[in-house]
Amino acid sequence: MSFSPLIRQLIDSLRILPGVGQKTAQRMALQMLERDRGGALRLAQALTRAMEGVGHCKQCRSLSEDEVCQLCLDPRRDDSLLCVVEGPMDVYAVEQTGFRGRYFVLKGHLSPLDGLGPEAIGIPDLLARIEAGNFSEVILATNPTVEGEATAHYIAQLLANKGLIASRIAHGMPLGGELELVDGGTLAHSIAGRRPIQL
Amino acid sequence: MSFSPLIRQLIDSLRILPGVGQKTAQRMALQMLERDRGGALRLAQALTRAMEGVGHCKQCRSLSEDEVCQLCLDPRRDDSLLCVVEGPMDVYAVEQTGFRGRYFVLKGHLSPLDGLGPEAIGIPDLLARIEAGNFSEVILATNPTVEGEATAHYIAQLLANKGLIASRIAHGMPLGGELELVDGGTLAHSIAGRRPIQL
Repeated sequence: MSFSPLIRQLIDSLRILPGVGQKTAQRMALQMLERDRGGALRLAQALTRAMEGVGHCKQCRSLSEDEVCQLCLDPRRDDSLLCVVEGPMDVYAVEQTGFRGRYFVLKGHLSPLDGLGPEAIGIPDLLARIEAGNFSEVILATNPTVEGEATAHYIAQLLANKGLIASRIAHGMPLGGELELVDGGTLAHSIAGRRPIQL
Repeated sequence: MSFSPLIRQLIDSLRILPGVGQKTAQRMALQMLERDRGGALRLAQALTRAMEGVGHCKQCRSLSEDEVCQLCLDPRRDDSLLCVVEGPMDVYAVEQTGFRGRYFVLKGHLSPLDGLGPEAIGIPDLLARIEAGNFSEVILATNPTVEGEATAHYIAQLLANKGLIASRIAHGMPLGGELELVDGGTLAHSIAGRRPIQL
């Protein structure tokens, strides 16, 4: 037995959600049809409104429905620190740490093989943002992947030419990790970045 | 930092999906906003169309956008077998087994404490369907839970009064299961329902 066309379209459409395969999409579709049609209609409306109403902040390039986001407008934040990340999701992750400076969101990382150079990921905009601001330190919080590292080094070089301090987030053992399970590269970073114990 | 209102509404709405908590909903919302706005708009449309267009087949009560579903209209199916299940999702599960009779979908199971009696779950409609048809056997495929068993027994009693054969799906060890891990009730059913080995 195959699903009727409308149900099949719904199942196919649900598969764009991250982590949702065929089986999960079926379960979601049938469960909404059976138990929560009101919620499903509200979801449809929320999707349409968000996709049409949410753009990017013109200052930090994070997701925002206003021209400049609440975070950029907040006068209580530290104007001397700028944190550079690869995407809007990273802003929410860094916010959890208690960081209270400003942000700049790149469009991913440098990836010459995919044709993504400095312009494509917004590095000229980053430089313009830094020129316009009054930052004493730029924290490069791109991901600790090969591309993320390359992007951080590229930006650090540009900033060094302008006499600005760029810092990189620390690499090492994640809390709760085990030495025998972590990869060699991480452990090497962890040992190279060792710090004296404060007693 | 909190999410902007439209993003927050989208995250809240996504939480109606089964198995989606706060973190997953955030990831889904931001990923759609960043990478697949077209897909998200198509999802919104598919949701609206399905919720408004899909009803229940008037014969088997399964989900259908037509008055009578494709399965009930199919002339190649066995008109002597009726399989009774608790919900539309169960129809898709039983279809996978190769069963090719007809179906009747109850609205859940008997649950007197929740005020769900025979009328609420559609047992009078089931009896009417059986009267109208020409079934030689009614397979009661409600779930092997206390409520599912009670529902099956209740229906079997009604059918016995009419001189109709009602059968119950077998309970026992799931394939690939392990005796030392399975619960005592299942194992007891498995032993009580043992069958001679055909050599």
